[in-house]
This record gives sequence, structure tokens and C-alpha cells, in this order.
Amino acid sequence: MKASQFLISTLKEAPSDAEVVSHQLMMRAGMIKKLGAGIYSWMPMGLRVVRKVEAIVREEMNRAGAVELLMPVVQPAEFWQETGRWDKMGPELMRVKDRHERDFIIQPTSEEVVTDIARQELRSYKQLPKNLYHIQTKFRDERRPRFGVMRSREFIMKDAYSFDRDEAAAKASYQVMAKAYRAIFDRFGLRYRAVAADSGAIGGDLSEEFQVIAATGEDAIVYSEGSSYAANMEKAEALAPQGPRPAPAQAIAKTPTPGKSTCADVADLLKVPLATTVKSLVLATDQANDKGEIVKTQVWLLLVRGDHDLNEIKAGKVPGLDATFRFATVGEIVDHFGTKPGYLGPIGLKKPVKIVADREVALMADWICGANEEGFHFTGVNWGRDLPEPDAVADLRNVVAGDMSPDGSGLLAIERGIEIGHIFFLGTKYSAPMKASFLDESGKPQLMQMGCYGIGITRLPAAAIEQNNDERGIIWPDALAPFTVVVCPIGMDRSADVKAAAERLHDDLQAAGIDVMLDDRGERPGAMFADWELIGVPHRVVISDRGLKEGQLEYQHRRDAQATKVPAGEVASFVKSRLAS
Amino acid sequence: MKASQFLISTLKEAPSDAEVVSHQLMMRAGMIKKLGAGIYSWMPMGLRVVRKVEAIVREEMNRAGAVELLMPVVQPAEFWQETGRWDKMGPELMRVKDRHERDFIIQPTSEEVVTDIARQELRSYKQLPKNLYHIQTKFRDERRPRFGVMRSREFIMKDAYSFDRDEAAAKASYQVMAKAYRAIFDRFGLRYRAVAADSGAIGGDLSEEFQVIAATGEDAIVYSEGSSYAANMEKAEALAPQGPRPAPAQAIAKTPTPGKSTCADVADLLKVPLATTVKSLVLATDQANDKGEIVKTQVWLLLVRGDHDLNEIKAGKVPGLDATFRFATVGEIVDHFGTKPGYLGPIGLKKPVKIVADREVALMADWICGANEEGFHFTGVNWGRDLPEPDAVADLRNVVAGDMSPDGSGLLAIERGIEIGHIFFLGTKYSAPMKASFLDESGKPQLMQMGCYGIGITRLPAAAIEQNNDERGIIWPDALAPFTVVVCPIGMDRSADVKAAAERLHDDLQAAGIDVMLDDRGERPGAMFADWELIGVPHRVVISDRGLKEGQLEYQHRRDAQATKVPAGEVASFVKSRLAS
Repeated sequence: MKASQFLISTLKEAPSDAEVVSHQLMMRAGMIKKLGAGIYSWMPMGLRVVRKVEAIVREEMNRAGAVELLMPVVQPAEFWQETGRWDKMGPELMRVKDRHERDFIIQPTSEEVVTDIARQELRSYKQLPKNLYHIQTKFRDERRPRFGVMRSREFIMKDAYSFDRDEAAAKASYQVMAKAYRAIFDRFGLRYRAVAADSGAIGGDLSEEFQVIAATGEDAIVYSEGSSYAANMEKAEALAPQGPRPAPAQAIAKTPTPGKSTCADVADLLKVPLATTVKSLVLATDQANDKGEIVKTQVWLLLVRGDHDLNEIKAGKVPGLDATFRFATVGEIVDHFGTKPGYLGPIGLKKPVKIVADREVALMADWICGANEEGFHFTGVNWGRDLPEPDAVADLRNVVAGDMSPDGSGLLAIERGIEIGHIFFLGTKYSAPMKASFLDESGKPQLMQMGCYGIGITRLPAAAIEQNNDERGIIWPDALAPFTVVVCPIGMDRSADVKAAAERLHDDLQAAGIDVMLDDRGERPGAMFADWELIGVPHRVVISDRGLKEGQLEYQHRRDAQATKVPAGEVASFVKSRLAS
Repeated sequence: MKASQFLISTLKEAPSDAEVVSHQLMMRAGMIKKLGAGIYSWMPMGLRVVRKVEAIVREEMNRAGAVELLMPVVQPAEFWQETGRWDKMGPELMRVKDRHERDFIIQPTSEEVVTDIARQELRSYKQLPKNLYHIQTKFRDERRPRFGVMRSREFIMKDAYSFDRDEAAAKASYQVMAKAYRAIFDRFGLRYRAVAADSGAIGGDLSEEFQVIAATGEDAIVYSEGSSYAANMEKAEALAPQGPRPAPAQAIAKTPTPGKSTCADVADLLKVPLATTVKSLVLATDQANDKGEIVKTQVWLLLVRGDHDLNEIKAGKVPGLDATFRFATVGEIVDHFGTKPGYLGPIGLKKPVKIVADREVALMADWICGANEEGFHFTGVNWGRDLPEPDAVADLRNVVAGDMSPDGSGLLAIERGIEIGHIFFLGTKYSAPMKASFLDESGKPQLMQMGCYGIGITRLPAAAIEQNNDERGIIWPDALAPFTVVVCPIGMDRSADVKAAAERLHDDLQAAGIDVMLDDRGERPGAMFADWELIGVPHRVVISDRGLKEGQLEYQHRRDAQATKVPAGEVASFVKSRLAS
């Protein structure tokens, strides 16, 4: 490709609404163009990256035996009503009426449609297992689209759906995808982690996220420094502390803490470690009758150490709390604790409250908590002596760096990542409401067991950039680069030798199937190099009259501090050997 | 590919709503699946065809110097308001509101967005010409979607847009596309015609449709049997007849024609050729003031020969009629002609009417027309003698087979086609309202001259089938076939030799880059052959134990009446040579 035949459009400055580096660099490098909030055109330079991502994903999905189809962007509401998602999903589900006032949605994902296809097409156990996928435009009407294509409203996703005859077979299909995803992410050439994720109400351990590591990532990833354990923050278990609870050493005392309504403030005031304080979080669960009227409300007090954070996913797994809990209202808190939030604690309650202690809190002695009276905390609190043992003990908190790894090997560390893929065992979540069944050997209908497997195709380029950039711009791994090699001739318009050598190298590399760009725009060297460093092409060859006379041309990788001299006659084979390595 | 790893789903019967053969066969061959009215999923078998179409289009567009990008499916209304299409387009433009009640559309085409990109990115004459294209999902909310993917609501289109510095350059860009389209359609392996089309208000001759020839096509295509002339019916010119108008031979006579209100009925009654009658068509044009109130209405009488049809596009080009004409109301007709439609004619009008005669009518003598009195026609009518010469003479009619070709070479013939591509010079239709300008050499802003170029990617497979099918199913040209070759082993489960030979042939052809399908489903020969004849794979090799023993395998092209025996050891090279030819 020659630059004069392409559309290159670099900017000195990123627009002011570009908050993250990938968004800034994609705008500056002319990869994307904003059309509206969360809606972008992929410009020629960016689209080349998207196509490379698609090609890798498609090849590995096909290799893993998945079959590609294409389901529509605009889907009739009826399928979404069948599974209840028409009602359950909020305004992020883009709804639209056609000329006949019939309801449609712009698909954010395709479980309903693929399950409809499966229930029609997969009638016999002989046709299973089957994995169907498509690479298609999706839309999610995010309340606050941001970070460019990282959290846009319109995006392209690869979503695959597996159909199996039973849970064991479905888990085998899941493992095939887990392996294919590793192959895909290996080929991207990015640092990533496959981390265990919470699988929600379905249970089991069959949910993994594929996180591209980047300091700017939205997600906290937990991993062991001593083993292969990795999970996302929602999922990572905090083990129970070793050893028994220490014996009480202090007497309980009501201590004035005026205006100190947080654990940190109280610890500061009393000059004690934050880890000696206990945080009180008040939740509620409602019980409804057949008419949906609330007939009973249970209030819960969750206790976690002052330096720890509540993990709401884990809280939702406490028996009785489920995922339906809500935070209690101020009215409910005053009613049960006799005071407003800020000085709450488990001692001296007005009405029955179920108390759940984090594993860590359950083994603490001489701790500090609110006294249920404004301006006062209790110090030297001890279980059994000052209050009954908790109703339940559970893992309620986010892990922190330095915690023991749940597999017992090594300590946990935390880094940040960007979720690009998610694989998930679905069971009969969709096949049951949609009655997607097949006939088994005995001719009996059985519900299909499903799995789903997504990759954010248009999100990946942004994640790759968050991981690979410097002050000059993007640094693409070879596999994702819009062009792998750029040939930069200096003074091409003045020197026939330079022009001939540049075109020869371009043609040679192109004939070898390499994505090579010849910058024939006639830019000055500084501006030309800056453009390609911003765009992030990994391999550059500079062709100058002096170089040709000396018989030495300059090769430089985007990560190299300086250029390497290569004999002019060997530059093509040198570049090819660099690409092969 | 092995059939057991694919999704093959053939049907004995097409659904009752499939009216045309391509729709029936695509449903029966499991190429598409209906999700809702005019909304289809592309099943794996069909998607392979779509991908082949896309690949051919992409390669030739790139070869022609066009640059691919990807514009969004969901587009903010503001761009469509800028060009006025938000108001002008009817309910076929799918409108949608986001969670903030802002207006969006689901794109039916992308002139607005690409012009917005061009006005930002193409600032200098140095960046021109530029041709930008994308292959993207589109939506048109058709009142009556039908014929499967031929007239669906959601579809995939390739749309390209050229930007040039002046009209001459734009016309050169148009010619580059005209050439690329011929290369694309040649590669499809279909019979097609590039026909001149009407370019509407923009004028000039720069509009061509690419029509795939099929007896079932919706469009009438006119071509010369003696030259390369071809046009669509709207555009094809009817030449003025040779020679002068004959002298009058009959006297005018008012003749009773009770109940005979059509030319055909009158000719029958009077036992004269239909070609001696003249049809009267009454149009009207309204003149409005600044407030949009109609201040003046002009009534027009258009005369075409009784055996000819009015061409409304041509009528719209008569000076004064423009494209804004409407058919006159019954009230207006009674007011001007003194009678209701059925017996109208140009003689004895009550109020002034502008009379436009078709070229043919203007040269007729002794003709028949309505007498402006119910139940009566005039016979023996002659221009100049019985009524003044017409106010205007114009080409008003559709051509008919046997007319002289407008280029003077040969006679016209008519066949039917399916429009798959359309190329079009746009001029400043979009660049003017959107102020898309560039700076010329003297630094002066100039509006860009545009062209647009579409190909119906998902419509093409249907058109290919309309052209290529028989009672057994589809017959794909090699370039579009989902699989080029199918290997059909007989008794693969019983014979290790058959299995080994089938797999060897499959692997050999696949290694040569041929899209080969090995049917390892274990179907009986009859059902297996019927499936692949329905699906339309062009090349088939049957591998049987007997054939292996005899050393002769059966090759059959989908169009061959019977199989060809090929020495077993040469079957791979035989197939390859058939594909190369």
C-alpha cells in the first residue's frame, strides 16, 4: 500500500473529551472518528486493526470446530419477551418500533436468536455438540459512553454459543473454548490473564474472563505470585485467617468519638491501627406475597474490618441474602439501631437484626465498632463476652495484596486489566424458557445445555494500546498492526535511486504477503517519522540517498532506542527474518 | 470441511410464504432462516456465499484504489437533518430514540456520514481524488418486505463514495468504478448487463445499473441486438419515427363507442389496429407562493399511442412538468374536458390545457381519440386540420421490443433483470448542503464533486439463484459456491478404503486451497446427492467401493447430465483442472 492511495490523518492534539490514552492515541492516529456520543466510524487505519482481530478470532474459532453464521442486528422483541429480558433489561437495551408499531431491539447480544435457531435446527443428539458464532455489530445504550471504543454504544463483538446434550458435554465444550481463547489471546501478542470470574446464579466454576493487562484497566485482577491462580476481584476468595481467635485483653469501653463517623477517622483519633476497627454495613431483604406486596423485611448487619471493602457479589451468596438484597433505608436503620449511619455497631440493637461477620472479623479480639449512639464508639469489644457469636460467618470482603492465595500457594498480588473476553457456562438459562430441546437416544426430549463465549472485537485495539504505548504513540504487536512495516524514503521526489529502492523494497515485502506501507507523501523526515511512531507501525526502514551510497540502510523497531544499519542488499531478508522471529 | 462439523439443514418443502424460486431454494438449502418479516439470519451455508461476494467486491474495490472504512449502523439524526433527508424520507427510514430521547436512524445508506468525514478529512486538493467505501449492515423498513433476502429490511450493502475536485475528475472517478464493477460482475460468473439508468435531477449520463439477468427479475432491461446499447426501461429512449407525417386520408368523425373507455376496447369495436388509437393522460403542476399555498395550477394532456405505455420519468423531463407533476383529479378533468376519464381527447377543451404529444403521436395521421363526451370517440383525427399542432413533442413512452436502438444500430430487445449494483454521479447534491469543501491551488474553498456506488451484497446470492437453478435446486458458479467441491463417499462407515480415499481427496483439495466438503454424515446415496444438488455445489466426486476396485471414480458437474469416469489416481488433478478452466 502506498500512503498517497490511503487515508492518513494524524492530529497533533487529541480532542478534549478523550480521557484515556488509547482514546487519545486512536483519535490522534486517525484510527477512529467520533460520530456521536459512544458512536464511532472506523477509519481505514483503524479498520485494518479490527480486521486483523477478526481474522485471528475467526481462524481459531473455526479450528476449534465452531461454525460461523450471521444473526441480525435488528431483532423482533418477541424472542426477548420469551426469556424475560425485554422487561429485565434497562434502557441500555435499545428498543425501536417499525412502521407497523411492532417492537424490535438493536441486539446487544444474541442468546435468544441463537437459541431459537438451535431449537429448530438441532433436533437430535446426533447433531450435538454444536458451537455457533457470529461476528456482528451490537448496540448498548450506555448511560455514560466513554473511553472511545472501550465503552462505546455501538461495537463489534464475536459471540459464540455452544449446545450440548448434558452438563458434562457442555463442560467439555467450555474447555474447548477455554483452550481456543488462549490460542486467540496468544496470537494477539498481548500480555493477558485468564481469570476465574463469578458465574452468578448458575454456580460452578465455569466462568473465566480474559483480561488484557494494563495499568489503566477498569478491572482489578487478583493472582498468586506463587501459583497459576488468577481471578477477578468479585470472585477471588479471602481465606479464613490461620489459628484461633485471640483471648480478650481489653475491657469494653464506650469512647467519645465526636464527628468521627468513619473507621479511618476513629483509628486516627484513637491512635490505633485501622485493622482494629470494624465497619458496619446494613442490608435488607424483602419477602413478597403472590401479589408482589412486601409482607416481611429482614434487616442484616454485615461486619468487615475497617481496612477492608465489602464485596457485594460475595454478600449475595450468604444464605438468605441472595442476590436480591438491597441497602437498608435510613428509616430502617434508625428503627433497628436507634441512630443514623456513622456510629452503627452490633451491640444494643432495638430490633432483631441478622449479624454476618466476615471470616476475618469473626476471629478478631478487642475490636472497635460504633456504639449505636451518635458520637460514640465501643473499644475492646469481644465476641461471646460483649455480644453473642455472629449468626453467620462468611467471606464478605475483597482480597488485598498480600493475602494468602486461595489455592494455598503464594501470596496474592493485584494488577489491573481490561476485559476483552468472557466464557461462561449457561446451563439451561435460555434453553429452559425457550424450550430448546433435542431428542436423546431413547427419543425423549431433553433441554440443551448451553455455554456462551464473547470477545470484544472493537474493544481489543483500545486495550492493546493501553498496554503498548509510549510518549510518541502506539506500539502495535506485529499481529495487530495496521501495517507491519513502513518504508520511509527520504527525498523520494528528488532522487530516482531512493524512489526505485523504496518501491523495490515495498514490492518485495508485499509479494511476500507482508502488510507494508510505502510513505510516498513527500513529507519531511521528522513529520514522516512522527506520523508512523504515532500510528505505531512496529518495523521501519528508512531509505536515503546517503544510505544507498554507503550501502547501509536504517532499520528500527518501534521499541528500539536507535536504528540498526543493514546492508542495502539484505534489507528485505532482514525485515522478513525480524517478522518471522 | 467435514459435514459432521458443519450445520447442514435441508428441507423437502419451502415455507408457503416463499414466493420466488431463490427464496424457496435458499430456505430449502438452509442458507437463510427467517427471524421476522424481512429479517433473516444467514446460516453457515449461506454465509459462506455472502463472504465470497464480499471478498470479490473488496478485492476489486481495493484494486481500483478505493479505501475501506466502517461507518456506524446507528447514526445521529442531525446529519440527516442537515441534508433534509430526515424529513424527505418516509417511514422506510427506521427512526429510533436513545435513552436521552435523542433521535437516531438505522442507516439505509451513508451519504451523510461519509460527507461529514470528507469535509473534516479532505481539506486540500492534494488529497483528492478519494474513494471511501464500507461493507455494512443496513436497514430499510419496507412496507412489504418479500422475496426473502431479495427485498429484506435488514441487508448488507457495499457503498462507496468518491470525492473529486471538479466535475471532470468526478467523471473520471466514475469511470474507474464503472470498470471495477465490470471486473466484479465478471468474477461473480453471472450473466449481467450494465445498463444506462436515469440520473434524475442531476442530469448527465452518469448513472448505470448492474443487472443480473433472470426471467423472474423485477426490472425490464432494454438492449440492442445490434450494438452494445443497454438501458433500463425508465431511461431507454424511443427514437422519433423516420419520415414525415402522412397526409390526412380520412375525415374526422364522431363515432359512438358506448361503454368502450379503453383504447383496446375501442380498437376492438372499430376493428382497427390498436396503433391507430391515442391515449390521453391528464397531469397537473402546481405553483406555490412563499407560504406554500398553491396559487396556480396548470393542467397537461399527454398523448401516447394506444399500444404504448407512458414513461413517467420521461414525462418528468418535459419542460414545465419537471418531476413535480401529479395526475389530475377527476374534478380538474371534468372542469377542463367537460367529461370524466374514459373518453378524453385533445379536441373541444373547456379550459386551456397544455398538450404534449409523444414523438410517435406527433407523426400520426387519421388517428382515434376520445371526443370529450361519454360514449363517443373521434376517428380520422389529423393534426393541423382538426386541432392545432401540439404545444410540445417529446419522448413520453416506454420503448417496446422491435423499436430502433437509440444508437441507431439494431433493434431493441427486452429482458428482465435484478438490480445488484448502481453507480451514480452525485455532483454536489450532498456536498452543497453539508458544505463539504476543499481548498484548491489558490487557497479558495470549492465544493467537492461526489459519486456513489452500491452493490447489494446479500441480494446477490438470491439473484445468482434466480439465474442458475433447476428442478433439483441451486447451481452455483464456482466463484460464489459455499463449497466448490463435494466429496460423497458411499458406505464410508462400512469400508475403510472408501473412508481413506475420501479423506485423502478432501485433504488434498483442501491443501490446494479449494473449498471442499466431505459428506461424512453417513447418509444414503440418494439423500446425500439430493442434498448437494439442492445446495448447488458445482463439482461432485463420488467414492464407492466398486469404483475403487475398478479404479474409476465418478465426477459430475452440477450441470452435467451424467457422471464422468475418472481414473481413481487422477481424480484430484482432474478436479483441479476443471476448477482452473
